[in-house]
Amino acid sequence: MKGGGVQRIESHAGDIDRLLLASFLSCGEEFLSGEDLSAAALVSRTSVWKRIEALRDHGFIFESVPSRGYRLVNLPDFLHPAAIAAGMITERVGGTLVTHREIGSTNTAMARLAEAGAEEGTVLLAESQSQGKGRLGRVWASPGGVNLYCSVLLRPPISPFDAPQLTLLSAVAVARTITACSTLVPVIKWPNDILVNGRKVAGLLNEMTAETDRVATVVLGFGVNLNMASEQFPPELRYPASSLFLEGGGRINRIAFTRRLLEELDTLYGRYLGGGYGAIREEWISLCGVINRRVRVDDGGAPTREGVVVGIEESGALLLRRDDGGVESIYTGDVSLCGQTG
Amino acid sequence: MKGGGVQRIESHAGDIDRLLLASFLSCGEEFLSGEDLSAAALVSRTSVWKRIEALRDHGFIFESVPSRGYRLVNLPDFLHPAAIAAGMITERVGGTLVTHREIGSTNTAMARLAEAGAEEGTVLLAESQSQGKGRLGRVWASPGGVNLYCSVLLRPPISPFDAPQLTLLSAVAVARTITACSTLVPVIKWPNDILVNGRKVAGLLNEMTAETDRVATVVLGFGVNLNMASEQFPPELRYPASSLFLEGGGRINRIAFTRRLLEELDTLYGRYLGGGYGAIREEWISLCGVINRRVRVDDGGAPTREGVVVGIEESGALLLRRDDGGVESIYTGDVSLCGQTG
Repeated sequence: MKGGGVQRIESHAGDIDRLLLASFLSCGEEFLSGEDLSAAALVSRTSVWKRIEALRDHGFIFESVPSRGYRLVNLPDFLHPAAIAAGMITERVGGTLVTHREIGSTNTAMARLAEAGAEEGTVLLAESQSQGKGRLGRVWASPGGVNLYCSVLLRPPISPFDAPQLTLLSAVAVARTITACSTLVPVIKWPNDILVNGRKVAGLLNEMTAETDRVATVVLGFGVNLNMASEQFPPELRYPASSLFLEGGGRINRIAFTRRLLEELDTLYGRYLGGGYGAIREEWISLCGVINRRVRVDDGGAPTREGVVVGIEESGALLLRRDDGGVESIYTGDVSLCGQTG
Repeated sequence: MKGGGVQRIESHAGDIDRLLLASFLSCGEEFLSGEDLSAAALVSRTSVWKRIEALRDHGFIFESVPSRGYRLVNLPDFLHPAAIAAGMITERVGGTLVTHREIGSTNTAMARLAEAGAEEGTVLLAESQSQGKGRLGRVWASPGGVNLYCSVLLRPPISPFDAPQLTLLSAVAVARTITACSTLVPVIKWPNDILVNGRKVAGLLNEMTAETDRVATVVLGFGVNLNMASEQFPPELRYPASSLFLEGGGRINRIAFTRRLLEELDTLYGRYLGGGYGAIREEWISLCGVINRRVRVDDGGAPTREGVVVGIEESGALLLRRDDGGVESIYTGDVSLCGQTG
């Protein structure tokens, strides 16, 4: 792939590249004439030619035949913003997409963009992270070229009390996307993990800034292990980790997965803003691996507790029925299954 | 006052200036010999002399008599960190104190310090703010030299759900300080205002960064109108505003007020960390102007509601008993008295 010197590629909705790629992706293996492409992207045929050359520099492979036009033969193995945005249908998410070859942490970088006034729905992707982070300051292994590391900026008009609902929402979005892009069955492990076959394949790191009674920004961070191989996992992990590939999901098309995730997120977020947290909650419960299960809760400070999870509060807290019959709200902590149904 | 060119003065606990000023402040109008001061500040007599000259440059007035030593005659009308820190007894708050002559917003500046790793308890003060901000993005009038604009950084090991408790805590700290430094009677108006004679004299702007289930940083912002004159208020204010001076509190010593506020905050925060939110809650309720009063709640989105405030939840939410008998938790909004007791 040429263009290895490009460290950051940005795309805005309506970009010429996006329109061109949408045309190619929607026509399968057909050739498209310069005239067709010119009409689709609303630019001159000279501009079409220049953009196709630029895309070639980014690793897109086009076949061109003088009498027939261009045919897209292959996409780069790179989360190219225009390739993700091509044909993506969203209302609020992905108006701006930025991909970095390497970054410290997409969430940290997004926090800076947010402070500088980035608009709701801005998406920041990285091929690899040098300081990938998980919940509670833990390290998130982030090798290059195989997974998805993605942060999405939201500015929801909600109270900080309701912000954990967005973690439920993003968990549902990941689960839906895994279901759509593979034959695997995802399970949500409260609060921030997605499991397949009992192994962690995705983690959510959602960070907010807020006043006492109003959220300013929420950065939804997604780390999804797509095509990661066994030897790419660090030897010591807190929780058995895996990837969709290792769990038998086949080789995942990273661009298609990302596009679908952003679309699912957009749909769920739109529904959430319309007042329908209830509907997301039902879906969350149906995907959740701990409802009616016996679990152990370790929240660092308090003594470890055991009980059966009997539901989830509107706020996002787990409801734990202890053995003495009392029901407790769990707002934080690591939850592990005790291996018995309740 | 000389030294007008100094735009930012920093103080760390244990500073020589702080030790020298503590000696002067604790001895009233007595002279202190160079030898006494040298022992108190743990430095040479030459260093004592140099620091006293430096403090003179910052507006401190010392009388010196060769045979007797030095006497502190007057403090500058400036929130000098060492003057605030002198004699201040705190455990967690004020290890680092920084005063700016002018700044955009102390909260915004503190957020940047927090991101850069500033330690818990760091205090940032400004003589004036060019972009003073109140709750919900409102403007906070911040003329120079008459009031207190102060931000304190905390890194509490709590869940975001509990963060509003720190707003109650900081309201109690301000109320206690007003009681200690004047004969006025403060009333807390939920969630973020302190009133005297029904007029707003202080506002709190507390901002946090958090993961889904863990707070990273809380910036407690205090704007207290101390000696502000009528003509210094902007013509249009959402809520009748005043100052302690205008309400008959006399001319407030800004340095003493600030020191006391930081001490009260430190005491309450220590108690809070020890697990005693309950004790703060009782004091908050005793200071709160809306318990058992009929109020109107306007939270922007939902229709305005009326009812009687019957208490406060552990989370910091107000409990409103509506006329139909239902009790509702109020997490956000503007609350105004309906002028009737419930």
